[in-house]
Amino acid sequence: MRIHVPETASGRLSDAWRFCVGTGRFELALRRDYQDSLAMIQRDIGFRHIRGHGLLSDGVGVCRPYEYQGATRTRYAFTYVDQVIDAYLDLGIRPFLELGFMPAALASGEQTVFWWAGNVTPPRSWNQWADLVRATVSHLVDRYGIEQVRTWPIEVWNEPNLKEFWAGADRDAYHRLYEVSADVVKAVDASLQVGGPAISPGADDWLISFAEFVDGRGVPCDFVSKHAYTSGPAQHVPFGVHQTLAPAERLLEQFATPRELLAATGLAGLPVHITEFNSSYRPDNPVHDTALHAAYLAPVLANGGDLVDSFSYWTFSDMFEEVGVPASLFHGGFGLLTHRQLRKPTYHLYAFMARMGEHVLTRGGDHLVTRDGTGRVTVLAWAPVDVTGGPPVDGHTLRLSIPIGGLGTASVYMSRSSVSEEAGNAWAAWCEMGRPASPGSRQLADLYEAAEPARSHRSLPRVGGCVELDLVLSRHEVTLVELTPVVDETPPWWDDDRLLGL
Amino acid sequence: MRIHVPETASGRLSDAWRFCVGTGRFELALRRDYQDSLAMIQRDIGFRHIRGHGLLSDGVGVCRPYEYQGATRTRYAFTYVDQVIDAYLDLGIRPFLELGFMPAALASGEQTVFWWAGNVTPPRSWNQWADLVRATVSHLVDRYGIEQVRTWPIEVWNEPNLKEFWAGADRDAYHRLYEVSADVVKAVDASLQVGGPAISPGADDWLISFAEFVDGRGVPCDFVSKHAYTSGPAQHVPFGVHQTLAPAERLLEQFATPRELLAATGLAGLPVHITEFNSSYRPDNPVHDTALHAAYLAPVLANGGDLVDSFSYWTFSDMFEEVGVPASLFHGGFGLLTHRQLRKPTYHLYAFMARMGEHVLTRGGDHLVTRDGTGRVTVLAWAPVDVTGGPPVDGHTLRLSIPIGGLGTASVYMSRSSVSEEAGNAWAAWCEMGRPASPGSRQLADLYEAAEPARSHRSLPRVGGCVELDLVLSRHEVTLVELTPVVDETPPWWDDDRLLGL
Amino acid sequence: MRIHVPETASGRLSDAWRFCVGTGRFELALRRDYQDSLAMIQRDIGFRHIRGHGLLSDGVGVCRPYEYQGATRTRYAFTYVDQVIDAYLDLGIRPFLELGFMPAALASGEQTVFWWAGNVTPPRSWNQWADLVRATVSHLVDRYGIEQVRTWPIEVWNEPNLKEFWAGADRDAYHRLYEVSADVVKAVDASLQVGGPAISPGADDWLISFAEFVDGRGVPCDFVSKHAYTSGPAQHVPFGVHQTLAPAERLLEQFATPRELLAATGLAGLPVHITEFNSSYRPDNPVHDTALHAAYLAPVLANGGDLVDSFSYWTFSDMFEEVGVPASLFHGGFGLLTHRQLRKPTYHLYAFMARMGEHVLTRGGDHLVTRDGTGRVTVLAWAPVDVTGGPPVDGHTLRLSIPIGGLGTASVYMSRSSVSEEAGNAWAAWCEMGRPASPGSRQLADLYEAAEPARSHRSLPRVGGCVELDLVLSRHEVTLVELTPVVDETPPWWDDDRLLGL
Amino acid sequence: MRIHVPETASGRLSDAWRFCVGTGRFELALRRDYQDSLAMIQRDIGFRHIRGHGLLSDGVGVCRPYEYQGATRTRYAFTYVDQVIDAYLDLGIRPFLELGFMPAALASGEQTVFWWAGNVTPPRSWNQWADLVRATVSHLVDRYGIEQVRTWPIEVWNEPNLKEFWAGADRDAYHRLYEVSADVVKAVDASLQVGGPAISPGADDWLISFAEFVDGRGVPCDFVSKHAYTSGPAQHVPFGVHQTLAPAERLLEQFATPRELLAATGLAGLPVHITEFNSSYRPDNPVHDTALHAAYLAPVLANGGDLVDSFSYWTFSDMFEEVGVPASLFHGGFGLLTHRQLRKPTYHLYAFMARMGEHVLTRGGDHLVTRDGTGRVTVLAWAPVDVTGGPPVDGHTLRLSIPIGGLGTASVYMSRSSVSEEAGNAWAAWCEMGRPASPGSRQLADLYEAAEPARSHRSLPRVGGCVELDLVLSRHEVTLVELTPVVDETPPWWDDDRLLGL
Repeated sequence: MRIHVPETASGRLSDAWRFCVGTGRFELALRRDYQDSLAMIQRDIGFRHIRGHGLLSDGVGVCRPYEYQGATRTRYAFTYVDQVIDAYLDLGIRPFLELGFMPAALASGEQTVFWWAGNVTPPRSWNQWADLVRATVSHLVDRYGIEQVRTWPIEVWNEPNLKEFWAGADRDAYHRLYEVSADVVKAVDASLQVGGPAISPGADDWLISFAEFVDGRGVPCDFVSKHAYTSGPAQHVPFGVHQTLAPAERLLEQFATPRELLAATGLAGLPVHITEFNSSYRPDNPVHDTALHAAYLAPVLANGGDLVDSFSYWTFSDMFEEVGVPASLFHGGFGLLTHRQLRKPTYHLYAFMARMGEHVLTRGGDHLVTRDGTGRVTVLAWAPVDVTGGPPVDGHTLRLSIPIGGLGTASVYMSRSSVSEEAGNAWAAWCEMGRPASPGSRQLADLYEAAEPARSHRSLPRVGGCVELDLVLSRHEVTLVELTPVVDETPPWWDDDRLLGL
Repeated sequence: MRIHVPETASGRLSDAWRFCVGTGRFELALRRDYQDSLAMIQRDIGFRHIRGHGLLSDGVGVCRPYEYQGATRTRYAFTYVDQVIDAYLDLGIRPFLELGFMPAALASGEQTVFWWAGNVTPPRSWNQWADLVRATVSHLVDRYGIEQVRTWPIEVWNEPNLKEFWAGADRDAYHRLYEVSADVVKAVDASLQVGGPAISPGADDWLISFAEFVDGRGVPCDFVSKHAYTSGPAQHVPFGVHQTLAPAERLLEQFATPRELLAATGLAGLPVHITEFNSSYRPDNPVHDTALHAAYLAPVLANGGDLVDSFSYWTFSDMFEEVGVPASLFHGGFGLLTHRQLRKPTYHLYAFMARMGEHVLTRGGDHLVTRDGTGRVTVLAWAPVDVTGGPPVDGHTLRLSIPIGGLGTASVYMSRSSVSEEAGNAWAAWCEMGRPASPGSRQLADLYEAAEPARSHRSLPRVGGCVELDLVLSRHEVTLVELTPVVDETPPWWDDDRLLGL
Repeated sequence: MRIHVPETASGRLSDAWRFCVGTGRFELALRRDYQDSLAMIQRDIGFRHIRGHGLLSDGVGVCRPYEYQGATRTRYAFTYVDQVIDAYLDLGIRPFLELGFMPAALASGEQTVFWWAGNVTPPRSWNQWADLVRATVSHLVDRYGIEQVRTWPIEVWNEPNLKEFWAGADRDAYHRLYEVSADVVKAVDASLQVGGPAISPGADDWLISFAEFVDGRGVPCDFVSKHAYTSGPAQHVPFGVHQTLAPAERLLEQFATPRELLAATGLAGLPVHITEFNSSYRPDNPVHDTALHAAYLAPVLANGGDLVDSFSYWTFSDMFEEVGVPASLFHGGFGLLTHRQLRKPTYHLYAFMARMGEHVLTRGGDHLVTRDGTGRVTVLAWAPVDVTGGPPVDGHTLRLSIPIGGLGTASVYMSRSSVSEEAGNAWAAWCEMGRPASPGSRQLADLYEAAEPARSHRSLPRVGGCVELDLVLSRHEVTLVELTPVVDETPPWWDDDRLLGL
Repeated sequence: MRIHVPETASGRLSDAWRFCVGTGRFELALRRDYQDSLAMIQRDIGFRHIRGHGLLSDGVGVCRPYEYQGATRTRYAFTYVDQVIDAYLDLGIRPFLELGFMPAALASGEQTVFWWAGNVTPPRSWNQWADLVRATVSHLVDRYGIEQVRTWPIEVWNEPNLKEFWAGADRDAYHRLYEVSADVVKAVDASLQVGGPAISPGADDWLISFAEFVDGRGVPCDFVSKHAYTSGPAQHVPFGVHQTLAPAERLLEQFATPRELLAATGLAGLPVHITEFNSSYRPDNPVHDTALHAAYLAPVLANGGDLVDSFSYWTFSDMFEEVGVPASLFHGGFGLLTHRQLRKPTYHLYAFMARMGEHVLTRGGDHLVTRDGTGRVTVLAWAPVDVTGGPPVDGHTLRLSIPIGGLGTASVYMSRSSVSEEAGNAWAAWCEMGRPASPGSRQLADLYEAAEPARSHRSLPRVGGCVELDLVLSRHEVTLVELTPVVDETPPWWDDDRLLGL
């Protein structure tokens, strides 16, 4: 069956898919590989904001108590904060601030999370916490200007509904933290945007109570945030895990709940940010490295923007130390990129999305078709993914009839880029190489080549105002097809047959 | 039939194929695109020397007569010479100097060659010519040091056997020019290398008379040079030509004649440099842009080093103005690269050669197999080319059994890169695009992608100490296969089937 | 006497000084050194437009007649045009187009100008000239968009009042050329800006007749242009000239005439562009290389914006071939930069101007004082120049009292940058080195260091809301002083005297 | 009194001053600012090796125990090690390896040193320590080749004589650690270089006992190492210290002891490496940022090479976290460079040393004079430093008569670069700016300019084969004078007086 793509656009493609991307802890941004990776990401994808943990943790060195003349005072130091944010802005990306975790000097307990030991206990003094937030936000406004900083959403803490991230998963304590933080942010400048509760999946009841709390007390709130993941429990092996995955639609269902649940509350109509999403929530699950993963997420990227204002892929790079220093180049990290900037299939999915036009012509279970202002038509298509272990599908087909070009357009230049089990798949090459933990320079060169999508091109005839595009997708393929009407400049004397002078 | 590649090397792969490359006239090297192109070339190929016309022509501004106190004097100015050679050395390439053409101030006539009007008449004064050569060579030795400059061959003039390049194709005048030049070069420093006669194809009789002249008069001569081309007469169309081609073996035959003809002369045993070669001698023949051209030249690169000390591809870039400013991006230029650095199939042939190992295991009509010091085996293979217009060959096959690895090597990582009528072929894409004379930025981006070779990779089992490699070549394909023994670091707990936690 | 700078601004500093800069012929822009030079210029100065000769000359290859099927046709080829303009836009600068000179194929005669032989004869066919202009302007609009191209002024020809630049200095022929060109430009798009007559100094009568012609026939005209120079006749030496100079005020007087002379004509109120200005009009006058030159031009830059909409320094770089290839690194070229990017004193004058604030506080015969939006005050000051050979002035003084800062500002950070006979003066260093025609790498390194302005800094006390600034200027010094109110973060425990623990 | 510099060299200038430089902990090398800083250092100074702490600490993630099939095993992971060393080699610098500190998994106790908590207890199992060292060294040899790795000295631990760095400062335990480590290094490859004991100042008795131990048991030892510092006890203020300094000669005395003390032992004649030296051993002493510091160390750099094979400045950059994240841009860090690459006066001292010639002509208490192979003479001179708080010395003078040039040399080009209390002193500028903790972009731009040395140049006449050089040094000035014989190319027609055509 051939799908006839309409000529009239049905709407605009939302920017929600690239409003934000996740990152490992704050100070990793000082690294060269991190900045080079982000530069590549920005050139090929162009995210608007970046969000990670640890802004206020001791590794960044903001909160600095000292003794002077017999009294203890606090200095707020922004040496690393400024270096990181300067770099972000130079790279064309803005922070999505997360207030956390707790500086040791302010902490009420010793509970920490992650290999890098973020303290997750409430402040021992709410005033001192307020001072810290005020000093930080004021400094940013002083340095970068309110015009700039008011575009940076400020989220209070991370996943307070989990006891690993917030001592005791104490809801009332979180509400207090939120209120103190939101009030002080707005006191710095009323135009700043503050929000929460940044909950993990499966805790939507916190949305209701957060809405009641905020509403009831008139606490400022500019947006609502939650996270979305679809993996089952971790089955551990050394330096890794395996997990079952729910179908990708579960992600979209998780995206949808805030608007539904908050519709009748005072938070109705606020922007909703999915401030983290991925399949597995583990940074050591090899599924993140695969072509299957790109095909799995393709419909989420194509459709998520209907449901939320942003959904932020967790994370752009494998530079990430929550479970320690990676012991191998590929190790199941969240990254779109590995250390040393190998592009994974999911990276290409994002890069393909960045080449879509702004007008949506049609969408379906395995495709998205857009057109841009110049008349170029772009098709994103993906093979089906079965997370239940059914027999793999090779040769999924998609047949489209696409209106394109105008009077005088006789043909269309088609270029196609694909990633699949075989193409654009550095991980597959790395497995064939014997999974070298720390590849040498020649192996890296081979891997860079293997990470390049398969490319092809062809001339398609335009008949009846349309081209017919027949796509056959190999296993777990995600493909981008770009169609450009040809303006033929071939001179009248050109004749292919005379190439050899015969 | 499967070819059994021997384990023992039959010899070393000569560097003759990359000893030198050709370039458009001297001052083009001041261009940014030129230098960026050369940087790319050096990274991917690594030529040793570069040779072009025009060092002494007026566009470079070396010979500068002036009046002072009533007398005419000459200043020798090296502003551009130094800028160009500084750039060459920074880029890791050395000049292969060509002495010519004639400065207007020294010329005995007004005959010129090329759109850029190089004067091709003898000097009006042999002494002044000697002064010019002396000043130039002395300056280079002063600036760059004799250790450096003695590695730069110095060739006297270009194709003096053609009346277009040397007024009247006057052999005696050329001999005189050679003698004056060679003597003055040696007078600057006896360790400098000077040679000639830089003849065009079909004039091997000049080799004999050159040998007799040099021998008879004891003129210094350190190397012998000639050119090789295989195209028939130009059949003109606007902004282009078509020409028949002789089979590629004719190039090898042309390479071979100097050693044969000079064997009994005083020049026997001298280095032989083919200081220009290509299929067509025209800078506007589209054959240069094609995959056919790469497949045509592949056996020449694989075998030419047996016959000569160097053979220099004419030229590395389409930046070249002998018939004027190119009127279109692709225009049949000699270049391995177009303007703006699109890589043509022949570029990739050279880049593939640069990845061959130093030990030759075997060679044949469609393949070259090498091994490097680390045990990696590399195969260059190419499809047949029929220059007589016979039916095209698709699916040419080559089957090899290749000894590789050692005890404990269970598998081999194979990566393959190819150019063909469809892959790595920006010209084909450009034709499909409607042959835009001056492509816009999006078209250029598409062309860069189209210029990338097709890449694939696979794991091959090692059985009986060998892997079996079965190659099917598409039309005019040139392919590079790299085989690396795998050191398997896969941990014992790894199981592909558990990827989805099932 | 101390000058008391007012606190209230008297106006905004016009951008006229950097609206445009001159360049050598069009195709020189393909060079690496050119583009690197321009990148440096744009970072430090930031010109808006760039104007040079030769867009339509044969070196750029636009106009290309050919034979096909027995007829002569013309192809318009933009290979180099597009490469150059792409580069300009990438470098953040836009063309100021000049239509000229005449392609050989269209020329009615053989008269040429410059070493590079620009043909200066009228077209043999006005229709073909119109076709050429139409093809060129249309192509630019197609490639770059009308939004972009309508910001590029289009000037018809160059100095038609001189017989060297326009055969016979034929005024009627120029008017015809102007009319044909202007009509066809406007036919491409009525929003494009076209103007003339681009006359050399001393020919203001052409302005009147141009106004009459344009007015009388209703020919489109969006701006008026002329040139300004102050040098006397050339006194030749080999590879150079000496010339007397009129005082710098003569430049300002030349700037002023178009508004005066055209006030009563139909061209009254049109933008006036001085599309070339300099002291000497010769590219081989060493005065261009000196500190004297910067001090000479300082008052012109400080005041010219009151008189015209732009005045374009002729030229940004010594890459320039009107009298041939330069025979020496320093050779009296027009450039702000030499070949290889040595910054001359006049370069620094421009870079200093680029650091002035947008609000003018005061101006005088030896100074300009501005303030920017952050409260920083900037002073440009210059020593007097005597072009009549009087005794040189050392130690010229300027004393200012400058209101700056606010409550709580106790001190002001002053930084000062200077060029003079000794400082920031690579030419002086080059003379001391023995005037090497082609300096080696170590000499170049020394020259780069010598080209750096002298820098100093100090803390000034703020008293009564002001700081007192006492400047003593050495011979031909141009100095930039930047004054920034200090926010003191010194901690209470800091004590200079304890540095050594004593 | 004028010093007459001899024409004949007294010896070669040792490379000891740049054999090695110190760095903050290992993983800081992943940072962009670190690598950019090191690139700048390598371009201007060119150290051969780099040494820091923490290779085996948990932040680098080498030692990774895990459970599998019921047993605990150890994986050795080199993800970060390889990234860092790859970067070092790309930057043209090699590691000087230090084995330490103790991975938590191997540690026998919990004592740590520094903010970043390096564990300083002996291994709980000597075999496991040996396994760790073997795995690490073997990996490096596999990856980088034995030819490369044998040039990297391998030092066992750091300052074991201090109880902060080695639990209990247990000498016998250190000897055991040394023996186990040295044996396993040599077992990997006998050509590797291993040494110790890396002691802090004031513990030379450890040298004797180390020699006895090594000698007595035949333990391999290829070099001897110690540290040198000259500061008194720390007088703390918040975020800083003040300390008295001993005169700089004390550093040279500390350098000298190993050769003296070991002369009669089995370690006599071994290379001696001062693997750390500085004035203060505190990373928060502002003296490091001053011009005084450069003048203080100048005689040490000029003379240290007579006493030892290397002396390694501790450290090249302020990127250093031993007492936490720096709370201010300038904070008294060890670095030659601050964060964001501001060059301190001591940086310039090193850069000046890098421009000295290889032949020493003379040396004195305030100067070092050298000549290079091209005949260029270089003078390093420095003002006296009084660490006892005496009145500062302004205007210290040095008068030299220097033989230079040959027949025909009429003049000498002199260029001079200086740092002092006022020049090349970003710290002084920063103090004047109000000591901003986190300067904004304009302040940084001012600081970069302030960090540039003062430059001047002049032509000196050559009389009697010599030039007379009279230097007046301002307070704490360090100056580099370069003298180059002039080859005069001034044309006969040049006349300064005609510049203005008069």
